[in-house]
Amino acid sequence: MSEKEQSREQGFGKHILMNDLRNKYKTVFDDSGSGSVVSSILYLEGIHFNLMYFPLQHLGYKSVINSIANLYCRSMVPVSIDVNLGVSARFKKADIENIIEGISLACQRYALKISSLDLSSSLTGLAINIASSGKGTGKVKQLKPEATDLICVTGDLGAAFLGLQLLERESKVFEDAGGAQPRLEGFEYVIGRQLKPELKTEPLDKLREAGVSTGIIRAVRDGIASELIHISNETGMGCRIYHDRLPIDHDTTAAGRELGFEPLIAALNGGDDFEFLFTVPVNEHKKIEKTKGLSIIGHLVSLEEGNSLVLPDGSLAEMKAPGFDTVP
Amino acid sequence: MSEKEQSREQGFGKHILMNDLRNKYKTVFDDSGSGSVVSSILYLEGIHFNLMYFPLQHLGYKSVINSIANLYCRSMVPVSIDVNLGVSARFKKADIENIIEGISLACQRYALKISSLDLSSSLTGLAINIASSGKGTGKVKQLKPEATDLICVTGDLGAAFLGLQLLERESKVFEDAGGAQPRLEGFEYVIGRQLKPELKTEPLDKLREAGVSTGIIRAVRDGIASELIHISNETGMGCRIYHDRLPIDHDTTAAGRELGFEPLIAALNGGDDFEFLFTVPVNEHKKIEKTKGLSIIGHLVSLEEGNSLVLPDGSLAEMKAPGFDTVP
Repeated sequence: MSEKEQSREQGFGKHILMNDLRNKYKTVFDDSGSGSVVSSILYLEGIHFNLMYFPLQHLGYKSVINSIANLYCRSMVPVSIDVNLGVSARFKKADIENIIEGISLACQRYALKISSLDLSSSLTGLAINIASSGKGTGKVKQLKPEATDLICVTGDLGAAFLGLQLLERESKVFEDAGGAQPRLEGFEYVIGRQLKPELKTEPLDKLREAGVSTGIIRAVRDGIASELIHISNETGMGCRIYHDRLPIDHDTTAAGRELGFEPLIAALNGGDDFEFLFTVPVNEHKKIEKTKGLSIIGHLVSLEEGNSLVLPDGSLAEMKAPGFDTVP
Repeated sequence: MSEKEQSREQGFGKHILMNDLRNKYKTVFDDSGSGSVVSSILYLEGIHFNLMYFPLQHLGYKSVINSIANLYCRSMVPVSIDVNLGVSARFKKADIENIIEGISLACQRYALKISSLDLSSSLTGLAINIASSGKGTGKVKQLKPEATDLICVTGDLGAAFLGLQLLERESKVFEDAGGAQPRLEGFEYVIGRQLKPELKTEPLDKLREAGVSTGIIRAVRDGIASELIHISNETGMGCRIYHDRLPIDHDTTAAGRELGFEPLIAALNGGDDFEFLFTVPVNEHKKIEKTKGLSIIGHLVSLEEGNSLVLPDGSLAEMKAPGFDTVP
């Protein structure tokens, strides 16, 4: 079994196991997210990133983005980060500097301070932990979900996943052909989305300023299908999404064509977009439409109606997320 | 070069590199610790723990202790933890349950909630990240250091290090002799200090209740010598410690004799004690002496006098910490 297959196999059982653990230790679990001001991520080499094509500076930057994204979802503004790096002997001083350079750039961009930095050895590869802490904006209350709530998303979807596929393909070509130059021209957008993601906080800020209260907010890490199932679990509602409302950039479509990969599937199940997916009451639709960088892609429905995607012919396809085996 | 030597070699340059990074990126560094409500730790298999003798349940427990210790040092009470585990294919469901069981026990003991849990794959071994967040007790202000301040420590020192040496020795015997039973009877105390450390928060609470304001508080991770150099750096003062005031349990002394290892060295440079080391104004010495579980081990001196240990003959030995190469 390849490393990838192994890790995928573990992935399939992950959500069942996590639910089991939550039930078994429910007296100490409180993961409603309401009280926590912390978001911590662990990036492991070979699992979460491949240094064949991922520059260390970008990796540092992206680790911060990934860590702070959850704080925005809880209507908090990130303030500071704790950084722990585990580095094996093959990394030099300059490599560590490059990672910190990327972390530092993200700190400047998102007005964060590094409140602690620790380096330790690692037997194999690189491990990055970024724990970010935030403070409440104090301006937002989370609404009770209603079956008519709109489901909205910032920016566009699927680009980061197709960027990753291109990088993986060219990295393989490079290995097989003994150092052939990668062909990545024309795909700067999707590759940039993979290597240097940004958080689209402006539309959320604009809505807040316009007095719009949102329901659940999720950062899109593993494709919107997986996030919609989370929203369904948290709200006790179903989700209906319209295939023609999913925002897909034309560069993403072009990358999909190059790779023979359906961009709609990338949008639904691809990872690392870091767009924000959220619900708002239906009577706010005019304010949503007026806000740049937002798309209304569907709405909540009753739990009985399940999670579904409306296809071109008007029929419904049940929404599934690979690796997500929780029964909603 | 063995793994240990490799990791030690990296350790030697670590503090210089960290200081370089702090200087280079000083616009984004704010590691005074004053503002942060987060403490995050990263434990990597083969570096921070050896599963030959470290039970997974204890490992989960100790990871929490290590993470929350810093919050007490900032006069905060820990409230919740974020947990990220990276597990390679050799770990089974029951192993993960054992880790979470240990984490859960620590949560019960220290009144914490698990605010998030995430599992991911790992190519090799186990990686544990615990990010804890706290809230201020609101009762303590940190004092300006004075050259007469007393240096105090909770509990006793060196036990966890000698416990580790015993476990390492027996693990080696087990490997060499093809499964010989380890001889650990009589050393329960030092082994317990290594495998299941607790935080001595009661003496600190008692002092607070008695109206005693403390200066810097540090959790003893790498021996008090290293922590005293930190205190020296942070206060701009020197530290003088008296060899006969260092609290060393008689079980620690017995373990040192068994291993042919000087307990004083274990107390100064051994890791994982998780005792609290702190300064208080000299006029509080009566309240300190009345508080159970505290020892006065020395006092601050002027920076020019440096960091030193007073030996039996009254002479001074410069205090050094292995792996700590920052010029004070």
